[in-house]
Amino acid sequence: MDAEIIAVGSELLTPYRLDTNSLFLTEKLNALGIEVRFKTVVGDDRVRLAEAFRAALGRSQVLVLTGGLGPTEDDVTREVVAEVLERPLHEAEEIRRGMEERFARLGRTMAPNNRRQAMVPEGAEWLENPDGTAPGLWIEQDGVIIMLLPGPPREVEAVFSTACVPRLERIATGQRLRSRVYKVVGLPESEVDQRIAPVYKPYQNPTVTILATAGAIEVHLRARGATAEEADGLLADLGDKIEMALGDHVFSMHGETLEEVVGMYLVMKQRTVATAESCTAGLLSQRLTRVSGSSNYFLGGAVVYSNELKTKFAGVPAELIRESGAVSKPVAQALAEGIRQRTGASIGVGITGIAGPTGGTPEKPVGLVFIGLADARGTQVREFRFPGDRERIRYWASQAALEMIRRRVRT
Amino acid sequence: MDAEIIAVGSELLTPYRLDTNSLFLTEKLNALGIEVRFKTVVGDDRVRLAEAFRAALGRSQVLVLTGGLGPTEDDVTREVVAEVLERPLHEAEEIRRGMEERFARLGRTMAPNNRRQAMVPEGAEWLENPDGTAPGLWIEQDGVIIMLLPGPPREVEAVFSTACVPRLERIATGQRLRSRVYKVVGLPESEVDQRIAPVYKPYQNPTVTILATAGAIEVHLRARGATAEEADGLLADLGDKIEMALGDHVFSMHGETLEEVVGMYLVMKQRTVATAESCTAGLLSQRLTRVSGSSNYFLGGAVVYSNELKTKFAGVPAELIRESGAVSKPVAQALAEGIRQRTGASIGVGITGIAGPTGGTPEKPVGLVFIGLADARGTQVREFRFPGDRERIRYWASQAALEMIRRRVRT
Repeated sequence: MDAEIIAVGSELLTPYRLDTNSLFLTEKLNALGIEVRFKTVVGDDRVRLAEAFRAALGRSQVLVLTGGLGPTEDDVTREVVAEVLERPLHEAEEIRRGMEERFARLGRTMAPNNRRQAMVPEGAEWLENPDGTAPGLWIEQDGVIIMLLPGPPREVEAVFSTACVPRLERIATGQRLRSRVYKVVGLPESEVDQRIAPVYKPYQNPTVTILATAGAIEVHLRARGATAEEADGLLADLGDKIEMALGDHVFSMHGETLEEVVGMYLVMKQRTVATAESCTAGLLSQRLTRVSGSSNYFLGGAVVYSNELKTKFAGVPAELIRESGAVSKPVAQALAEGIRQRTGASIGVGITGIAGPTGGTPEKPVGLVFIGLADARGTQVREFRFPGDRERIRYWASQAALEMIRRRVRT
Repeated sequence: MDAEIIAVGSELLTPYRLDTNSLFLTEKLNALGIEVRFKTVVGDDRVRLAEAFRAALGRSQVLVLTGGLGPTEDDVTREVVAEVLERPLHEAEEIRRGMEERFARLGRTMAPNNRRQAMVPEGAEWLENPDGTAPGLWIEQDGVIIMLLPGPPREVEAVFSTACVPRLERIATGQRLRSRVYKVVGLPESEVDQRIAPVYKPYQNPTVTILATAGAIEVHLRARGATAEEADGLLADLGDKIEMALGDHVFSMHGETLEEVVGMYLVMKQRTVATAESCTAGLLSQRLTRVSGSSNYFLGGAVVYSNELKTKFAGVPAELIRESGAVSKPVAQALAEGIRQRTGASIGVGITGIAGPTGGTPEKPVGLVFIGLADARGTQVREFRFPGDRERIRYWASQAALEMIRRRVRT
């Protein structure tokens, strides 16, 4: 079964908004063994929507339309679909009553406009929307399944998960598709490919895709099987070999972020962390604390942008900064050791570097970053040269620091 | 003239990738008075791409195809377009030589595959690609303009800006479209609408769209005119009235971020800032330092996640924390004053709050945040209750802190 997604809404044709619902829908459809073949975005325009809908009807077995089910004149999806399918609209009293009750609960009266949302094409099932007034609609015609969903992401997710997935599961007799994502840090994309290509090339199923994302390389495996269990077995078979080839560069198999993995290790090993950041200026501490419960292992730290604060908060001797320069191996070491000592954390991390775009010199170019990590076993300092702009250099630096913590705490 | 965008690439039909090029293309096309009516995403599939391309040819005057121009078998855009337009492909020697030279400069030999990228449909112009090997292509047929662009965003932007825009400018005889964006902070969307609806409702041109983004409300104005100057005049006319209605809640008119605006004021007024962050844990300092040159006004600060560090780095008396609780007005005040005093900054900012999801109580619920701002004129502390999850609460808190700095420094 092939699917296609039509996102309806003039705002999705402006420079300011993208249709992001299709990512969620694709993931859910894929899991049912249904591939998405086309995605179309069309404005709130009867003629153009009818054209896109007719084309889709002629070539796909599963159609998901999102948006255009609201109460205003602009919302034309319901009417256009009914017209193309030649199914007259009638008011579903049950929906209207439900909507009136919803408004009453919120202490408001329903505007007459909203009654449009209770209109249902003949023979359509309506799908309850726990998060909004517009119900979804489910229509089967000539072997094609047509789903009309509201536009807001929360409502799409709620209606699709609770109403559409169970119905599709009963119908989708095809193969099941399962996926797994290995996240890799510390290896460039080309080396990841070089290591795993000999492993995965002989396989047609699972398929393997390598994606470079901010700070990590992701290896996506997708397997098809008659059952989910069979697909999982295929995933495990190839997945284990890929994991072996990548070794300890794999930090996550179930979607965890690097900061979550680091947090898990810190809790497990009962260690605490403190940070002294110069060029990243709080990005590392901000990432560490994205994880709920991080107060159990993150004590805090200092953002030591000026040289004076490097001395005041992390105890870096002023002479050292004068002699070696603020961006130097000795200063990274002193930051890590100083913040560890001042805070009493088991691990101290110091970062100093040149994020650019200005401030680089031939000897110390933009992208040069030193990261120090101090614990009871001693201090390690690594030198990095990150490519890209200010934002990227800072992100890579925070990523490298997290990876240094992961390696230190894991063993 | 109506345009439509076709993004080609199987990865764009997975749950992991979106076509983001269309945002840039839409902005540029809109500026030329060309509206985008359809966006289609299709995989690396000859039959399906041909179908999508034929449909587009029949209904739009400007077609932009992105992706599928690479050197591999998967890259089918060039061949499919040539076939549908019935224009045979031939090798453009000039392109091939340019590619060979490019490879030579990088010290590599060109793989035979790459020669595919030198193939050009009969009668097509080729468009230089400063950032990659695949040139763009420009074809005019039966009054339709067809542009083939490489997929990587940097290459799309380079080729479209330098080669397509000047050509389209000569052709697009229609009206010019210009836009302006007011960014507003400190007012909810509903109040923004209430204030400006009476102002903009009488206008058909410019059109006005209100968008809620993370931490700010954006008011987008788009005006059409026979010339860019006429459109600018219409923008200024309505824009000034809208600005008046929103007063000093408008912090930006030219796309600047709040941290850029704050930085500008700090430089202008020659003030410096230091931060003591608890729940935001470095997000404020990280945002302040996104701006290149921020070392001129940002000294640094402390991430005082633990109570001990609140005392050690920002001098908050331990008794005060015991008596009032770490999340309290007096502690926010002490953080702001303490960090100011310790760092010698002209402005100290202290943030303490409960980002959740755990740690809330009936008296101090998740989302409660106190922000203190201390300078020579005294200390102000504001109490906020932010909605949403951990990430959002932290972002809103950093936004509110920046806004407090903006208001303090501006006057």
